[in-house]
Amino acid sequence: MKEEIEELWREVRDLSLGNSGRVERLECPPRPVELVRDFINPNKPCIISNAISHWAALSSWSNPSYLSQTLSGAIVSVHLTPNGAADALAPLNSSLCFASAHVQHVPFPEALGLISSSSPPKLVAYAQQQNDCFRSEYLSLAADCDSHLGWATEAIGSLPEAVNLWIGNQHSQTSFHKDHYENLYAVVTGQKHFLLLPPTDVHRLYIRHYPAATYTYSSDTGEFDLELEKPTRYVPWCSVDPYPSPETMDDEMIKFPLYFNGPPPFECTVKAGEVLYLPSMWFHHVRQSGDDDGGLTIAVNYWYDMQFDIKYAYFNFLQSIHYRSTPSAMINDKVSEEIDSGRDDYES
Amino acid sequence: MKEEIEELWREVRDLSLGNSGRVERLECPPRPVELVRDFINPNKPCIISNAISHWAALSSWSNPSYLSQTLSGAIVSVHLTPNGAADALAPLNSSLCFASAHVQHVPFPEALGLISSSSPPKLVAYAQQQNDCFRSEYLSLAADCDSHLGWATEAIGSLPEAVNLWIGNQHSQTSFHKDHYENLYAVVTGQKHFLLLPPTDVHRLYIRHYPAATYTYSSDTGEFDLELEKPTRYVPWCSVDPYPSPETMDDEMIKFPLYFNGPPPFECTVKAGEVLYLPSMWFHHVRQSGDDDGGLTIAVNYWYDMQFDIKYAYFNFLQSIHYRSTPSAMINDKVSEEIDSGRDDYES
Repeated sequence: MKEEIEELWREVRDLSLGNSGRVERLECPPRPVELVRDFINPNKPCIISNAISHWAALSSWSNPSYLSQTLSGAIVSVHLTPNGAADALAPLNSSLCFASAHVQHVPFPEALGLISSSSPPKLVAYAQQQNDCFRSEYLSLAADCDSHLGWATEAIGSLPEAVNLWIGNQHSQTSFHKDHYENLYAVVTGQKHFLLLPPTDVHRLYIRHYPAATYTYSSDTGEFDLELEKPTRYVPWCSVDPYPSPETMDDEMIKFPLYFNGPPPFECTVKAGEVLYLPSMWFHHVRQSGDDDGGLTIAVNYWYDMQFDIKYAYFNFLQSIHYRSTPSAMINDKVSEEIDSGRDDYES
Repeated sequence: MKEEIEELWREVRDLSLGNSGRVERLECPPRPVELVRDFINPNKPCIISNAISHWAALSSWSNPSYLSQTLSGAIVSVHLTPNGAADALAPLNSSLCFASAHVQHVPFPEALGLISSSSPPKLVAYAQQQNDCFRSEYLSLAADCDSHLGWATEAIGSLPEAVNLWIGNQHSQTSFHKDHYENLYAVVTGQKHFLLLPPTDVHRLYIRHYPAATYTYSSDTGEFDLELEKPTRYVPWCSVDPYPSPETMDDEMIKFPLYFNGPPPFECTVKAGEVLYLPSMWFHHVRQSGDDDGGLTIAVNYWYDMQFDIKYAYFNFLQSIHYRSTPSAMINDKVSEEIDSGRDDYES
């Protein structure tokens, strides 16, 4: 099956994505029919300029005191981790677990203080909550942005299912995963750095089941505790860290050759004022940087319902297939066996 | 691989096509964004009413003398076969070949005479040529129809690549095949009866390579001769005849169990004044009937360019996979071996 799957990786790039590894750029929002035809239908990302130039947020949110003042009465969710890696693999008891952040609900000015004073490996704070938080916790900022992107709403045929706000700095990152949404990701301050892989590359990310664990932070001791959930719950998650440390690089390349030796991911930086169309089911890894050192990166993302159509069925079929070529090889090869070959059942 | 592929058949129906086996009906043409989003994107057929009600063709083409008069000076292509099955499998030298019609270029009134007097198994005529013939051979009918369907052109982003006219009667049919086009199929007189299968059902049609052959008709003897092309050329074609004679039914069901025992095809009749959106890469089998016995069925179809995108890459991947579950079964099983497992390389 190896050859057939590798041919699929190549063909998706040849046919519709291009082999440049570059994400297409549009100088203005596409017409709705163009967005569906040229991007959503072929499941192809693009970066759109001049789509949010009219947002008051673009000037006012660079000013932390504007935010603190406007949100002085707001209680917001802030995600605390020792190192900025929430919803990511972490070592625990000489094995790996899927670690979720300690979530605290604090007045916004306090959250902002925690983010600004973030300092790995002690404490990193990231204000985010993927539960439509922009339309709940951050309601007082509503007038600074559009409540939806008209051209995308018209294209997709429904209003966003969720609108999320993300406030962090260069210490926070998001590990490789995919979402079951069409995602319009608008950067307001700072920059977001994405690595993108099409759904057809699913085997290259070595999705395996990891036991779920959660950080607990004690403000008294300033220490984190990471504990497995009880009863044990397994989360299928991508095993690949695309930026291993120099010391672990060789080891990671041996463990995950399909990622490190295969076609490189699409790499792109989305700047303040730009919108990324991140197609449903694409794997993405996200880092960020501020306009100045330690400065905030703020983004608003619109999750629109995806269509669970023939593309989705094809994805499930592909994921159900073992990468190795023969059954005997599969039985003898532990790595291959560990690849999640079930249906698409991610939980996040 | 058997289970995974069968799950794919099921899931495509569950998710986006529905299990009713019925093709969705629209009471008027969709807006361009709707056509892309709800049908082209999910690769889902529909039948559209009231899209061509303004065509003069709807009234004038029912009258054979109007056609003969308007096309009195036109030379048209007429396809002659003994039985109405052109581009179909036919027995030759105790094996099967892919038989093309004898194509004659005759004045239109003569073509019409041949069609009207068609009588299998001696001679059946079908005026058709899939080379944009409506805009060449039938140019004098241009004013009776639209040169393109505005809502489809806007949706797809380009004018039709080809517009074809089909004039035949109940004696002609088209065997299972697929086209690399988005197809808008407008019926002007009579009715077309389609059997449709999604691209994901490719293994159920037992595509195999058959040697190409061509009929030669002698008007002197009134006899057909069927001869293999030289040098031999192989055409990959669907092996399944969905309407076998009662005598061969048992045999066909044994040879092609995936077709006959699997989910039934989507079955639909497109009446005069209606338009079928037949998605790219869908397998289709077509029969036709006139408004009265022996009456003509006339249709105009618009072939728009399809996108060779991730769906197409997924299709090629699926087709490259053997249906049988283990390599040893594949080696020992002649039927399975014969399934075309190459890339998508149909010639028509």
